[in-house]
Amino acid sequence: MVIKSLQELYEKQEVKALEDFFTFLRFPSISSELENTFHMEACVKWLAEYLQKMGFSAELWPTSGHPTLFAENMQAGADKPTLLIYNHYDVQPVDPLEAWDSPPFEPTVRNGQIYARGAQDNKGQCFYVLQALSILLQRDGKLPINIKLCIEGEEECGSAGLNAILEQKKDRLKADFLAIVDLGIPSLNNPAVTLGIRGILAIDVEAIGSKTDLHSGCHGGLAYNPIKGLVETLAKMYDSSGAVAIPGFYEDIEPISEEDKKVLSLQFDADKYEKMFGAKPTGGERHLSPLERNWLRPSLEINGIAGGYTGSGFKTVIPALASAKVSCRLVPGQDPDKVAELVTSFIEHNAPEGVTIKAAAHHGGGKAVRSHAGGASIKAFAQAFTDVFGLPCEYVLEGASIPVVTNLAHASGSEVVLLGLGLPDDFIHAPNEHFGINRLKMGALVIARAIELLSQKSLTDRSI
Amino acid sequence: MVIKSLQELYEKQEVKALEDFFTFLRFPSISSELENTFHMEACVKWLAEYLQKMGFSAELWPTSGHPTLFAENMQAGADKPTLLIYNHYDVQPVDPLEAWDSPPFEPTVRNGQIYARGAQDNKGQCFYVLQALSILLQRDGKLPINIKLCIEGEEECGSAGLNAILEQKKDRLKADFLAIVDLGIPSLNNPAVTLGIRGILAIDVEAIGSKTDLHSGCHGGLAYNPIKGLVETLAKMYDSSGAVAIPGFYEDIEPISEEDKKVLSLQFDADKYEKMFGAKPTGGERHLSPLERNWLRPSLEINGIAGGYTGSGFKTVIPALASAKVSCRLVPGQDPDKVAELVTSFIEHNAPEGVTIKAAAHHGGGKAVRSHAGGASIKAFAQAFTDVFGLPCEYVLEGASIPVVTNLAHASGSEVVLLGLGLPDDFIHAPNEHFGINRLKMGALVIARAIELLSQKSLTDRSI
Repeated sequence: MVIKSLQELYEKQEVKALEDFFTFLRFPSISSELENTFHMEACVKWLAEYLQKMGFSAELWPTSGHPTLFAENMQAGADKPTLLIYNHYDVQPVDPLEAWDSPPFEPTVRNGQIYARGAQDNKGQCFYVLQALSILLQRDGKLPINIKLCIEGEEECGSAGLNAILEQKKDRLKADFLAIVDLGIPSLNNPAVTLGIRGILAIDVEAIGSKTDLHSGCHGGLAYNPIKGLVETLAKMYDSSGAVAIPGFYEDIEPISEEDKKVLSLQFDADKYEKMFGAKPTGGERHLSPLERNWLRPSLEINGIAGGYTGSGFKTVIPALASAKVSCRLVPGQDPDKVAELVTSFIEHNAPEGVTIKAAAHHGGGKAVRSHAGGASIKAFAQAFTDVFGLPCEYVLEGASIPVVTNLAHASGSEVVLLGLGLPDDFIHAPNEHFGINRLKMGALVIARAIELLSQKSLTDRSI
Repeated sequence: MVIKSLQELYEKQEVKALEDFFTFLRFPSISSELENTFHMEACVKWLAEYLQKMGFSAELWPTSGHPTLFAENMQAGADKPTLLIYNHYDVQPVDPLEAWDSPPFEPTVRNGQIYARGAQDNKGQCFYVLQALSILLQRDGKLPINIKLCIEGEEECGSAGLNAILEQKKDRLKADFLAIVDLGIPSLNNPAVTLGIRGILAIDVEAIGSKTDLHSGCHGGLAYNPIKGLVETLAKMYDSSGAVAIPGFYEDIEPISEEDKKVLSLQFDADKYEKMFGAKPTGGERHLSPLERNWLRPSLEINGIAGGYTGSGFKTVIPALASAKVSCRLVPGQDPDKVAELVTSFIEHNAPEGVTIKAAAHHGGGKAVRSHAGGASIKAFAQAFTDVFGLPCEYVLEGASIPVVTNLAHASGSEVVLLGLGLPDDFIHAPNEHFGINRLKMGALVIARAIELLSQKSLTDRSI
């Protein structure tokens, strides 16, 4: 069987692959922290050289922020399709550092899992793509289809840099299919291709009271505490049913499609969720099912809040300032700029007298994305999952976002397929992020197998 | 005139006094930060030696926390009254450090003001007491009345240590009058003695969601964000009129006395307040006057809040935890333990499903305090203010708290007089705290003059 031979090829290089993967993980490539430019560059240069050694032409595209790595191997020729694969080499911040059981940039193996920031999101998923290409190149001396890689450095902070150069790079990015390898599967028993992700927008909020911190005794009852003003204003964003109370927030949402309705029939195990995460899944609009809330409804979260004294002991202060970070996940029909305007105006207009509240949206929000189960690349990856897992492949949606996808699909003129081997309890964006050594292998096999399947199709298969 | 001769005496020693004051200010004696034990001890030992050199017997009383310095000079004899003076050598934390124009523990003079943490609260007010005693001792070789000093090290963190030993030390503390020199005056044109302060209680709040930080895309609409739960719960503590909405919060408040009503007739200049602090005085119950809100009504403030990611850029996280610090100022009739129970139960019971909220009161809350304008020591200090300022002395109230006062008055069996030379814009508990060099002198003169006046009274004057 073809999978078995791919598996044997992978196993031959597994030790070396893990060694190289650990090197990749050791770069503290946190894109949102400006002081990390040096580490970002070191990481992407290492990756470019790695690809060049594999037989790819690789180049760094400068952006307004961190560079994008573009690489290609077009030896399959013009009569074969071109697959553009998207990954990112940047990772999320690591705080709270004290909650990690091992250092986030010193990959550590426990029970077959590799613990490190980026182990899954997205260095792990990027690295098995490279291993898939490596085993095909080793076996055949060339790839069966044309491959382009777009590995960006700002996925975790809005993709503004890549977004701004997409139009200018559209000829280079041109492809038939675009595989976004940054998603997951419900469990190792449920291989799945993802048909949609939510969009995103992010907002910084600042509440300003007096021009200095004040003594809460001398000023309690006089000054309007900006923490109080912030807390009251943020609480007003929600109604008692768990819905967002900002007028117009839900207005442009498209009706749920038949394809999406099918996906909603999947089981959500609330007890398993509670066991896994230690809390009941009670967020969002209470009258809807958990999967509908997470996949098909927009959410509005307070991702951070700060103000006053929070150290040991007590400080009886009315602070001058308080701040928060707020973000929305969006569904089809919602425009990030329009929703950002609704949310920022609501917050600013609800400031109580005596407190000024400023809310400013970050650049680089992204719309929700939908693929269709009938697409050629979707069918190829679904078949690859079935072949590798020996189980039927499901179609799912995902609540998370990859802001650049819509524009990247447009610039490259390609059909989007969303996939990956993340699991719900990989703790991405959190302390103790991890990825299974077995999933590195399975991911490489899925990618290699899908590439084989795509090479068997004629180019006209693309139309669905 | 007697004030002139005291003034000349003070001016002779002023340069040395400032030098010693700066040494006192350089000790980073932040009582609430556990890592500061070393600096706290160094500070109180320096102060004890300073008093011994002046001619006081001085001893350190160990407590469960930082020691209390007790000193006395009883040479006036049993037929003269005894005045116990209360100060504290501990100071508030200094963050946000970046908001200070000069380092908080490196006293710096600008425009006649000494900038340092504790410059006013309470090292400045403590130090002019010592200078008053020093000039009287220099002039007469002895003090005209018996003086006891109680200088504690935990005023800024609840006075739990001193509170616990008061009963055991009651014979040592026994006095006729207790002067709490930790208050202020409305302005340099309004010398005033304070007839009352508010009580205090402090509460730590923690909101607990899942057992790890979660990705806000994968979990938005599933997990109940503990920042959201905390924000919603804290917002429920208030109604739309600015009043506290916790049932029973205002229940035990005593009716406003005739003496308090007189105090309320003082002018509050809202424009001057806005100019001074950069924000309108819009806090508290909107239908009441600013002075009533600050002096005669309890307040409930959120002194700190923290949760999630608040660094540069963005992190789309649903954190596992969020926390807040909440405190109340109390008025006569309110019991700190009872109000703490009301507030903590309210907070805990309003937690939404999926989030656990724990609220725990700190030990060492204090009740509100009231003195009466007819008391002998109140009259003596009012006369001293009039003599030093050349202006009539007013009676005021104060919104701040000194938790130990009630119990200290009880243990010492003395009549309480509350006073000090703080000004509303000294920025105590805030960055750029400062105290005027001129007020160090005036404070020393007020204390010295009041001691002279008290020595002229017979002991039976105490009864009012």
